[in-house]
Amino acid sequence: MLYRSRMPYFSEAEYAERVRRVRERMAAHGYDLLVSVDPSNMHYLTGYDGWSFYTPQCVVVPLDGDVLLATRFMDVGGARVTTRLGDDDILGFPDRYVQARGKHPFDWVGAQLAGRGHGHGTVAVETDAYFHSPRAQAALEAAMPDARFTDSAELVNWVRAVKSDAEITLMRDAGRIAEVVMQTALDTIRPGVRQCDAVAAILAAQARGVDGMGGDYTSFMPMLPTGDGAATPHLTWTDAPFVSGEATIIETGAARLRYHCPLARTLHLGPPPRLLSDTAEIVREGLDAALATVRPGVRCEQIEAAWREVITRHGLEKESRIGYSIGIGYPPDWGEHTMSLRPGDTSEIAENMAFHMILGMWMGGWGYEISESFVVTANGADCLTHLPRNLHVVD
Amino acid sequence: MLYRSRMPYFSEAEYAERVRRVRERMAAHGYDLLVSVDPSNMHYLTGYDGWSFYTPQCVVVPLDGDVLLATRFMDVGGARVTTRLGDDDILGFPDRYVQARGKHPFDWVGAQLAGRGHGHGTVAVETDAYFHSPRAQAALEAAMPDARFTDSAELVNWVRAVKSDAEITLMRDAGRIAEVVMQTALDTIRPGVRQCDAVAAILAAQARGVDGMGGDYTSFMPMLPTGDGAATPHLTWTDAPFVSGEATIIETGAARLRYHCPLARTLHLGPPPRLLSDTAEIVREGLDAALATVRPGVRCEQIEAAWREVITRHGLEKESRIGYSIGIGYPPDWGEHTMSLRPGDTSEIAENMAFHMILGMWMGGWGYEISESFVVTANGADCLTHLPRNLHVVD
Repeated sequence: MLYRSRMPYFSEAEYAERVRRVRERMAAHGYDLLVSVDPSNMHYLTGYDGWSFYTPQCVVVPLDGDVLLATRFMDVGGARVTTRLGDDDILGFPDRYVQARGKHPFDWVGAQLAGRGHGHGTVAVETDAYFHSPRAQAALEAAMPDARFTDSAELVNWVRAVKSDAEITLMRDAGRIAEVVMQTALDTIRPGVRQCDAVAAILAAQARGVDGMGGDYTSFMPMLPTGDGAATPHLTWTDAPFVSGEATIIETGAARLRYHCPLARTLHLGPPPRLLSDTAEIVREGLDAALATVRPGVRCEQIEAAWREVITRHGLEKESRIGYSIGIGYPPDWGEHTMSLRPGDTSEIAENMAFHMILGMWMGGWGYEISESFVVTANGADCLTHLPRNLHVVD
Repeated sequence: MLYRSRMPYFSEAEYAERVRRVRERMAAHGYDLLVSVDPSNMHYLTGYDGWSFYTPQCVVVPLDGDVLLATRFMDVGGARVTTRLGDDDILGFPDRYVQARGKHPFDWVGAQLAGRGHGHGTVAVETDAYFHSPRAQAALEAAMPDARFTDSAELVNWVRAVKSDAEITLMRDAGRIAEVVMQTALDTIRPGVRQCDAVAAILAAQARGVDGMGGDYTSFMPMLPTGDGAATPHLTWTDAPFVSGEATIIETGAARLRYHCPLARTLHLGPPPRLLSDTAEIVREGLDAALATVRPGVRCEQIEAAWREVITRHGLEKESRIGYSIGIGYPPDWGEHTMSLRPGDTSEIAENMAFHMILGMWMGGWGYEISESFVVTANGADCLTHLPRNLHVVD
């Protein structure tokens, strides 16, 4: 659906419900205060959205009292525009704290929290979130000497795992954009076309969106391992041209108002080697089997086991997890850092969860990758995109 | 210049010299080991390049012995492709450590370092680097109980401050792309054009590059605060159309092989209000004055003082710093986190340093921004781009 404002997309009631669910878990753990530094969690709790996470910032949830947001003074305006927080609840640290020797923004933030009566009791902090650092943590602890600090253990991330219907709508919108983005990539990569030009087409398609609905930036840059490089994931691009007789892994996706639909396919220029097309068929069989396992009540590891059964039967192995929960994302990751589809993860799948199932096979000198993003419904996995699940061959 | 490989761009001798300069400072501080987690520092020291910083990774520099790189097992291939490190010096942690409860990749990395004889002496860690977390630090310390941990105080960042001529060449290449990117933005933003479509054009221009030389992704997404939003920085975009009678701040830039040239301009659709055009003239005068102050031996705060003198005379104020050193960057920042152009920063400017001077004025309800990226030469500031320094008015 169209949405052209910078104001929070969701209703006031929805944000209130999110905070209520967070406080419910806080109370169960005996936390008096939660300090959330992950930009995705901050966005989830308040709607805050800006490229300001290169300086320290946080959303603070007390068990009782107003939710606060602390950021650099120049980003206070952005917080007023993109959240419904009261002006008194947005704290801006002075610019002299930014990337300065001998002081840290969280010296100031911690002092503010203590001054507002939050300096006592148990304070849970997201100690493994992106953009939180050991130095930031030390500053916070020093500024709140009477508080007892503990690790939040991704408390907010776990609350995010089950989406509202309104969130699922945005993920479906992201899926519609992701289909166009992938089709653009498949139509653009040809012998002689430079990798950077394919990326230009992909990035433009991500931003343009579909049917009047623009796209947001995704948490990952498009990754295009090609030729020898396809033997390893996470390589971006060069300005070398694509070459006939080589495979390219396209790992990309789309975002709508920070909600993501990741998507991967592999393309081969010219007739593919038998080993690659055979692998693609096995992987497809494994993908179908794993997706067919998805239903509320199933455990993450059971989904992976269905995949593993297929590839083992065909003599293949894969060490890494085959998926993870998704939703809101900011660079550098669109995963929620909660559930992984892998042995030992006994988390139970529930309705309105969402996952990216990604099957990357990196062999000696070559690779193959395909993925589907899906929502869990009462009937099973409902994929966000509907492209063929085969190796894409360009004759 | 054209460069189409994924191999390290710089000569083996240049990387050796970088490591030598780092070791020189390590020895002066009494460090036995340096753990570098900042992706820009890792790239600087080894050439490593991949979108793998969403899981923990580091480059380890012992005072004596081989430089090591630790990353997720699936990224070992990428490290082999993009660095000259020996296979034995690239350590891949097993996938079960990724985003798992009760264990951390740095448990494994710390144990490996201890096993290789690095578990004693003084270990300096980049404790405020992006993608290093309190939990990661705790894991490292627990796995190396006989080591004495200390803060590296951005040691590698400071070594990066003075560039080689080869690095400066890449920054000039980035500047050539940045000019085209900004011109694209200025030519695209028109009444009725959606913000997301302008971003599509900007992102495509960044990737396409110029004269056969492709562009790399920049550390910041394009920021386009417009209308009321222009009163605050760091807002990205929406799918609302640009409106006649409104200003848009364009804060973007370009990158070539991870080296950046940031660039900002402000555009107004239709005749600008007097207050905006007057402010633009004052800011231009201040920019010119500050740039004219640049020469080897000058202190950062003196450059800012030249700017401040001009705007104070015209009755304007600005709290925030007016610039910072630049070079290599990965999301979320293209600043080097060393020198800032602001009062109290007494760092001395030297030849082959590079800075982004950015003058953002955020007023009640509106804003104006302009920037120049420059290299310090014996003769002063040598700007990387050459676009007019005025408010860009579209009639």
